[in-house]
Amino acid sequence: DRPFILVAGPCQIESRAHSLEMAEALKELCGKLGLGLVFKSSFDKANRTSLASQRGVGIEKGLEILAEVRESLSLPVLTDVHDVQQCALAGQVADVLQIPAFLCRQTDLLLAAGATGRAVNIKKGQFLAPGAMEHAAAKVASTGNQSVMLCERGTFFGYGQLVNDMRALPIMAASGWPVMYDATHSVQQPGHGAETMGQRSFVPPLARAAVAAGISALFLETHENPTSAPSDGPVMVPLAALPNLLEPLVALDKLVKSPAFKNQMALCQEGLSL
Amino acid sequence: DRPFILVAGPCQIESRAHSLEMAEALKELCGKLGLGLVFKSSFDKANRTSLASQRGVGIEKGLEILAEVRESLSLPVLTDVHDVQQCALAGQVADVLQIPAFLCRQTDLLLAAGATGRAVNIKKGQFLAPGAMEHAAAKVASTGNQSVMLCERGTFFGYGQLVNDMRALPIMAASGWPVMYDATHSVQQPGHGAETMGQRSFVPPLARAAVAAGISALFLETHENPTSAPSDGPVMVPLAALPNLLEPLVALDKLVKSPAFKNQMALCQEGLSL
Amino acid sequence: DRPFILVAGPCQIESRAHSLEMAEALKELCGKLGLGLVFKSSFDKANRTSLASQRGVGIEKGLEILAEVRESLSLPVLTDVHDVQQCALAGQVADVLQIPAFLCRQTDLLLAAGATGRAVNIKKGQFLAPGAMEHAAAKVASTGNQSVMLCERGTFFGYGQLVNDMRALPIMAASGWPVMYDATHSVQQPGHGAETMGQRSFVPPLARAAVAAGISALFLETHENPTSAPSDGPVMVPLAALPNLLEPLVALDKLVKSPAFKNQMALCQEGLSL
Amino acid sequence: DRPFILVAGPCQIESRAHSLEMAEALKELCGKLGLGLVFKSSFDKANRTSLASQRGVGIEKGLEILAEVRESLSLPVLTDVHDVQQCALAGQVADVLQIPAFLCRQTDLLLAAGATGRAVNIKKGQFLAPGAMEHAAAKVASTGNQSVMLCERGTFFGYGQLVNDMRALPIMAASGWPVMYDATHSVQQPGHGAETMGQRSFVPPLARAAVAAGISALFLETHENPTSAPSDGPVMVPLAALPNLLEPLVALDKLVKSPAFKNQMALCQEGLSL
Repeated sequence: DRPFILVAGPCQIESRAHSLEMAEALKELCGKLGLGLVFKSSFDKANRTSLASQRGVGIEKGLEILAEVRESLSLPVLTDVHDVQQCALAGQVADVLQIPAFLCRQTDLLLAAGATGRAVNIKKGQFLAPGAMEHAAAKVASTGNQSVMLCERGTFFGYGQLVNDMRALPIMAASGWPVMYDATHSVQQPGHGAETMGQRSFVPPLARAAVAAGISALFLETHENPTSAPSDGPVMVPLAALPNLLEPLVALDKLVKSPAFKNQMALCQEGLSL
Repeated sequence: DRPFILVAGPCQIESRAHSLEMAEALKELCGKLGLGLVFKSSFDKANRTSLASQRGVGIEKGLEILAEVRESLSLPVLTDVHDVQQCALAGQVADVLQIPAFLCRQTDLLLAAGATGRAVNIKKGQFLAPGAMEHAAAKVASTGNQSVMLCERGTFFGYGQLVNDMRALPIMAASGWPVMYDATHSVQQPGHGAETMGQRSFVPPLARAAVAAGISALFLETHENPTSAPSDGPVMVPLAALPNLLEPLVALDKLVKSPAFKNQMALCQEGLSL
Repeated sequence: DRPFILVAGPCQIESRAHSLEMAEALKELCGKLGLGLVFKSSFDKANRTSLASQRGVGIEKGLEILAEVRESLSLPVLTDVHDVQQCALAGQVADVLQIPAFLCRQTDLLLAAGATGRAVNIKKGQFLAPGAMEHAAAKVASTGNQSVMLCERGTFFGYGQLVNDMRALPIMAASGWPVMYDATHSVQQPGHGAETMGQRSFVPPLARAAVAAGISALFLETHENPTSAPSDGPVMVPLAALPNLLEPLVALDKLVKSPAFKNQMALCQEGLSL
Repeated sequence: DRPFILVAGPCQIESRAHSLEMAEALKELCGKLGLGLVFKSSFDKANRTSLASQRGVGIEKGLEILAEVRESLSLPVLTDVHDVQQCALAGQVADVLQIPAFLCRQTDLLLAAGATGRAVNIKKGQFLAPGAMEHAAAKVASTGNQSVMLCERGTFFGYGQLVNDMRALPIMAASGWPVMYDATHSVQQPGHGAETMGQRSFVPPLARAAVAAGISALFLETHENPTSAPSDGPVMVPLAALPNLLEPLVALDKLVKSPAFKNQMALCQEGLSL
């Protein structure tokens, strides 16, 4: 019932200066909105469509930058890990380790992430029913780590298309773990030629829908100039558009976490599975 | 920007007494909530899975009952039509003629419904992209009838499953016609054996999501005892649960139609198509 | 175990001369290939995407032409019906009445088609699991008409896309009715703008796959010049390409109906449902 | 145009004795059928649904057993790799390294597999359009390794369901790489509770359809007693059923690789993409 927290940042760590600027701007905005913030950025894009696409600054440099963001701005940070070896390293810096959607069933990665003791955010695979995510969470929890989040980011819906099944939110929440909604990857259009495309124009209605259905955290990628970003440009929300996007969502979240909305969910007592 | 209206009633016209009781109860509830109400009920279920399922009271008897509801309670009524011949008859009584989802591309039916001059609510086919609904609306509008609504009620998503793509709401709205969300048929599970099943437990989160995304009308079927209803029992909302369901949705609707939410949609200027 | 029959013709009845020429060419080809032939053509395209698209010559003129094809060439003919009223009329001429995919659950249409005593070919709805087609067949059979065929023509797979699930063929066959495969509508791409597009380049691999899986009839639309056809041009097979397409399929069909392939299906004894 | 080769074996390496027995039986069968054989078995099941499921004998023991199968029976062997570190090790033994479907976009894994110089079989992700697999192949080929195969094993089709789009076979073949069809994983039903289920009864019709559409290799898992197998029991074909399954497929393959079938594909010249 607490307000959603915001997990936001540019898709990739582009440079020390860029990360610090983005984090500072986000911190200021969230301060105004009374929103908790986790800064998100990736040191490596390990599964780009094409080999020719830019992968990132690498783990060593990337973690160094995240550490500086974390300390200088007193912000928790989230980054994603792609193999067992990265977990311990990333866990020394990041407050939250994120398991990419394609990797959400890789047992060793989930165990290694869990073993760091850091919070673990598991993105729902585009190929997975939401009810199956409890098994992924159980792998992390088996390490004794009870800080798990499950994240909706779209489900495969015909070639090159994703759909957000908003039922996934209460289904995953029924497993007892907090649920995050990733508003920008959800509007990706994968597999059109050599690059993943997307439609940021659907971020507002989908984010509204998810906040209204009920979430613990909102994830979105942002950039001061998405068209120049090395990855996910078509889906990232321009930094300048964030206030207009977020302010109404905060009000919406407050409303749906009021008591009347709990009574409403009594209808859902019959069980939430598909 | 006006509040959503409610289109509600039992799936089938079961009897004169039942229709009047349901309509009266709904009228009273909507009065309390300040909600506009259209009473919905069907005289014929023309596409039941199995021949053995109950079809309804028939057009003559059904329209007679609807006419009585309409006059005695001063309520507008909606009913669905399944072939050209029914349109003129139904149009003498009903304020809104509804085109079933499976029939949303049947040109003659759309033209005949349009020619009655009554409002026409076209349900989006489970097999249709939301952007294609503008062509269905154009068929009705070609008759000179400008009272068209488009209604989301789920899209085919693997056998026996529907999904609500909430992007359908802004996409259909971009065509300029008002958009309705059908919260109960959206939770159907078609094609499991000889009966369509469903999960009413998902009505609240999906209705919230749709209202938050932005709709002109909310459609739902209701019954004082869904388990005894001759059709759609698994999805209808018990009449007694309606106040708890609707009151929060009214508050939500009011919020998302406030000015801050319009600015938010500026992000969507890039165009809304898939 | 008998060889598949071919159901073929131009999508629309364009004129008396065109129908006769097409039917004659098909008859000659099938004679060479030893293939049974049913001539297919439509008098009305009742569910075009756009109102502006050409609908056809109408039922009166269309049936007159089909009757002439039937008599002058001694060919059975198939045509599709869209409402109850058309059934009796069409049944006076056509050997097979076809129920369009969108209409495969319309009880009255199925009953009226069944009541003509003519064979009835029911296309599987793009929104329906193959196992549910037995209920559609049962509606026809309830009239005492035991000449029913079920036809696969693609299943909704994300917006603007169809997929052929080849499991549908044995599943529908398990209901006891003969199964047809529609090789040209299966490659439609519905809902791209105001016209349905398609990719005839996939007709050969899909037709091969279907014949190999096992079918009683092969349906395809053909035209001497598809690009000039008033409907379904993007999917129709050029008449001149038919010999190269069909000859191998005949050989394939013969092979898969040999005894060794029956033993192979013993693996399927466990039951065929999804 | 060469006959398909068979890639077969039990899902997991269960023991030295079991692997040798299975490989010997398969070798004898393929000798009779004139089929090329690659023995397949996994040392680790790295992405089981549930943590409680059995994972396998491990890489060291597993590779030792595969090496013995390879040498004592003179059979090429295939095994799957799940992270960069495994590639060099597995590449010392296996003739073919297989990239699991969930991992088909993991750049580092593809590069490491390519760098071994061994053949690399990339399974198409359940979340990927077939046309996108050329980018995965290009990552391997960038290492100078030109021995790449692409493998169809089903595409996500609603929760808990896969569908085989047979168009994927010519689309992937159009990239120039040989194409394999995995007949047993294609009938999995993932995400039903804590275990992946499946329906081996659909293996024969789907394998027929794929062979008819045209493939370079057929993949299937087999076991002398699938119900006792530690993984994929519901989909594996009983060893005793293999002769009845394979013999007709060999005849089918021979037929579709005859010249008449090449002419047939001339229809596909327009380009094969979705």
